[in-house]
Amino acid sequence: MTTRPNAALIMWPGVDDLVITPQVRAALAQVVTLVDDAPIDLMSTPLAELEAVEVLIGSWGCAPLDAASLDRLPALRLLAYAAGTVKAVVTDELWARGVAVSSAAAANAVPVAEFTFAAIVMIAKDVLRVRDAYRANRGEGWVSGVGPAGPLGTHGLKVGVIGASKIGRLVLERLRTLDVEVGLRDPYLDPEEVDELGATPMGLDELCSWSDIVTVHAPELTATRHMIDAERLALMRDGAWLINTARGSIVDTAALEAECASGRLAAWIDTPDPEPLPPTSPLWDLPNAVLTPHIAGSMGNEAERMGLLAAGEVGRFLSGRPLNHEVRAGDLGLLA
Amino acid sequence: MTTRPNAALIMWPGVDDLVITPQVRAALAQVVTLVDDAPIDLMSTPLAELEAVEVLIGSWGCAPLDAASLDRLPALRLLAYAAGTVKAVVTDELWARGVAVSSAAAANAVPVAEFTFAAIVMIAKDVLRVRDAYRANRGEGWVSGVGPAGPLGTHGLKVGVIGASKIGRLVLERLRTLDVEVGLRDPYLDPEEVDELGATPMGLDELCSWSDIVTVHAPELTATRHMIDAERLALMRDGAWLINTARGSIVDTAALEAECASGRLAAWIDTPDPEPLPPTSPLWDLPNAVLTPHIAGSMGNEAERMGLLAAGEVGRFLSGRPLNHEVRAGDLGLLA
Repeated sequence: MTTRPNAALIMWPGVDDLVITPQVRAALAQVVTLVDDAPIDLMSTPLAELEAVEVLIGSWGCAPLDAASLDRLPALRLLAYAAGTVKAVVTDELWARGVAVSSAAAANAVPVAEFTFAAIVMIAKDVLRVRDAYRANRGEGWVSGVGPAGPLGTHGLKVGVIGASKIGRLVLERLRTLDVEVGLRDPYLDPEEVDELGATPMGLDELCSWSDIVTVHAPELTATRHMIDAERLALMRDGAWLINTARGSIVDTAALEAECASGRLAAWIDTPDPEPLPPTSPLWDLPNAVLTPHIAGSMGNEAERMGLLAAGEVGRFLSGRPLNHEVRAGDLGLLA
Repeated sequence: MTTRPNAALIMWPGVDDLVITPQVRAALAQVVTLVDDAPIDLMSTPLAELEAVEVLIGSWGCAPLDAASLDRLPALRLLAYAAGTVKAVVTDELWARGVAVSSAAAANAVPVAEFTFAAIVMIAKDVLRVRDAYRANRGEGWVSGVGPAGPLGTHGLKVGVIGASKIGRLVLERLRTLDVEVGLRDPYLDPEEVDELGATPMGLDELCSWSDIVTVHAPELTATRHMIDAERLALMRDGAWLINTARGSIVDTAALEAECASGRLAAWIDTPDPEPLPPTSPLWDLPNAVLTPHIAGSMGNEAERMGLLAAGEVGRFLSGRPLNHEVRAGDLGLLA
């Protein structure tokens, strides 16, 4: 019998049901021995159980791996994070100890991009507002095949994408299946790279004033805080939409509330700031605002994709191959 | 100066603003002379204006071309229909006179497929129900990143497509961008053809019991009336969704209302029967029902696509090339 390196799951109880599915467990069983089938609590697990743990599989609920935690894991070599945002889990201490880190952000990007793409198609016909109005008046006054006034539809729609992140790139890829024009703002790409992504390079101000729909896929950084502020919102066209499935702090909520309350702009916000918005926010009731409870990312069966990615990374690492989704200390400044 | 054949527009006033855009007018001006820039009323237009009309460009609002209409168009050679459903416009009399017919169903299929695809992604996370509940309780009780119970998400979702029509095929194409399983029921395709479309061939009963989401893209025919009846709905899984962006008559509305009112099934209906539904229908208020006012098809800027297709067909026809989208008498039994 082969002795496989020890591994442990660190995530909220219940998250393992979603992320560490039978298929993921089977993949992990090929390469590691879990010290416990269930997620462990690092601080209360006997040290004897932890001393040989070489691999942590983390996910939602994994606390920052600080010195106190890492002191309990003397053999740790890899954190395979089976969720999107590893930034809150890694610490200087982790890097200092030479632990390798892999992130499942690429797997989590898939549902976010799918959601955003579907939201763009729905927004192009103002479907949620139309549905609410149609429902409220029980179909009275609607003529088959003829919708509300104004230019509607995806044909020739101008979509402005902020950030060629993992998610941004998947959104761009999906936008190619529509007859839309696409603008992209990403400070790290040159015009040729933007062109290869099927988009026109734009500055942020230009993108805001050009777009029918602006969709945010930038990371949460000091530099991106309130990147979409009152001034940028003021540049947006009358009737334009803002989609935020990234991080709330990128948008100045008060400024957005004002533009939506006046009826000038519309917004679909999956990640507000604060989250959830206070009950007094006008965005809850406005017909031109759609709030969804942070559901663009992996949910239900989508979480398995992150587990499969993490299990694959564990296998690669233990067989000496390079990680496909390694995160290094220097990357954090650009990661979501 | 070249003399171009005469042509006329037949559609409701205002429809020409959407369908016969400046770009479409420019394309038409290359190949025909419109007897009137505006849509004509066939029965009140002086015969002298009509006698040389070789081409009709029809769209929404074009009445059936019966003998009385056709007697006023002795030179008619082509009906280029710039909308989706030409079935209600053509007549035995039209075929008898040897008039060629082209349909823009292929152009109208694009937005319907886009809408259906986006609805599938939204349904996978039950987004509209979740949004309504989130709004009603002002975010109370929602935890970031964790949605309602039950398997949710697109990963591994089972989508059953009824009908490899123009729209059905575009939906199938778009479903390939998701990690879903796809079943297809089409009585005119052999298993190899279904496989090429990325789907598993199924009988209708099997498809109904297998699918998480059933989407209808069959034509409206005597044979398809109430194809989705109480018995087929009963085969569907608890919690499954029915999408209808095709024709209302294909679904037995009373049976669907009962299954949705009990909470067992859910439905997104863009094309109900009757249309709109009476104010007393339970579907208006149920959290598990989404009614939209027949907006999946071409709207706003999407209508131009139909005009461009029709203008292209006029050009092909007048230069002696075969039509790309010809409809023949024998096709009608299978067309939407």
